[in-house]
Amino acid sequence: MASQPIRILGIDPGLRRTGWGLIESEGNRLIHVACGSVETSERVDLGQRLVAIHDGLMAVIERYAPQEAAVEQTFVNGNGASTLKLGQARGIAMLVPSRAGLSVAEYAPNLIKKTVVGAGHAEKAQIRLMIGVLLPKAQPKSEDAADALAIAICHAHHRASIMLKMKVAAR
Amino acid sequence: MASQPIRILGIDPGLRRTGWGLIESEGNRLIHVACGSVETSERVDLGQRLVAIHDGLMAVIERYAPQEAAVEQTFVNGNGASTLKLGQARGIAMLVPSRAGLSVAEYAPNLIKKTVVGAGHAEKAQIRLMIGVLLPKAQPKSEDAADALAIAICHAHHRASIMLKMKVAAR
Repeated sequence: MASQPIRILGIDPGLRRTGWGLIESEGNRLIHVACGSVETSERVDLGQRLVAIHDGLMAVIERYAPQEAAVEQTFVNGNGASTLKLGQARGIAMLVPSRAGLSVAEYAPNLIKKTVVGAGHAEKAQIRLMIGVLLPKAQPKSEDAADALAIAICHAHHRASIMLKMKVAAR
Repeated sequence: MASQPIRILGIDPGLRRTGWGLIESEGNRLIHVACGSVETSERVDLGQRLVAIHDGLMAVIERYAPQEAAVEQTFVNGNGASTLKLGQARGIAMLVPSRAGLSVAEYAPNLIKKTVVGAGHAEKAQIRLMIGVLLPKAQPKSEDAADALAIAICHAHHRASIMLKMKVAAR
């Protein structure tokens, strides 16, 4: 039975830069579709920055019509002010695909690294290296875009595992 | 010179309950318009909860057509997980009025209390008492709705002070 290709949007949220990466997953094959990032200026109001993230992600969804989305789970550190900023951007990153009717999966940073590189404590450089191996046509111009592709790959892998388990159980 | 009445939307963001309160301010007069809260269920996905907050606030703006908005500045405590949750809800509370073209002011909790009660460390009960004095027709059913009215009152007061200062300077 041939599996249908599925188009996945990965999002790496951030107030200054929100990365996005689109891949297609068909069986074991992964194909790069597009990636980029939405940047906002620190010189404008918070509300306007959130509108920019919203409109940027909405434009990506309208243009590329992904079927599923995945967002990185935020690492909560000791800095409350940074956590709040990230939380606000992350709220928009969860809202936009949800409003568009997409399912939105969440993955912990360590699981994303483990899935893409094979180790939960991989360096950023190792992630970019593996993106180049797994998606040779991808040329992410920023770390956020590369991270967003890693999130999409993580979702492609884990949604496939879930489906495989379901098939095995149905035998 | 008669001042134009201005309709203000105050928002007290929270993932479980987001309070909203609408008042009209004309010179020194404050008039209650409406208040309430958007509640979300913990049993649904984060994305769906954020969509519920978004849609609830959008319905309020469409129905009551406020001209300006004000949101409470979040108190960042030591609990990163709560800060993140609140940040996500707050992102939506800032986004919706911004997208609707409203200016969105932010006020620190202590300034809101000081403006409404006269003391920066007022108790919740004192805020409700003063809401009853300042807006006798308001019957907020929840603490979030009362807090949202307090935020709107704070904005009415401070935007008036700013205008007064501008008038004095222009003499």
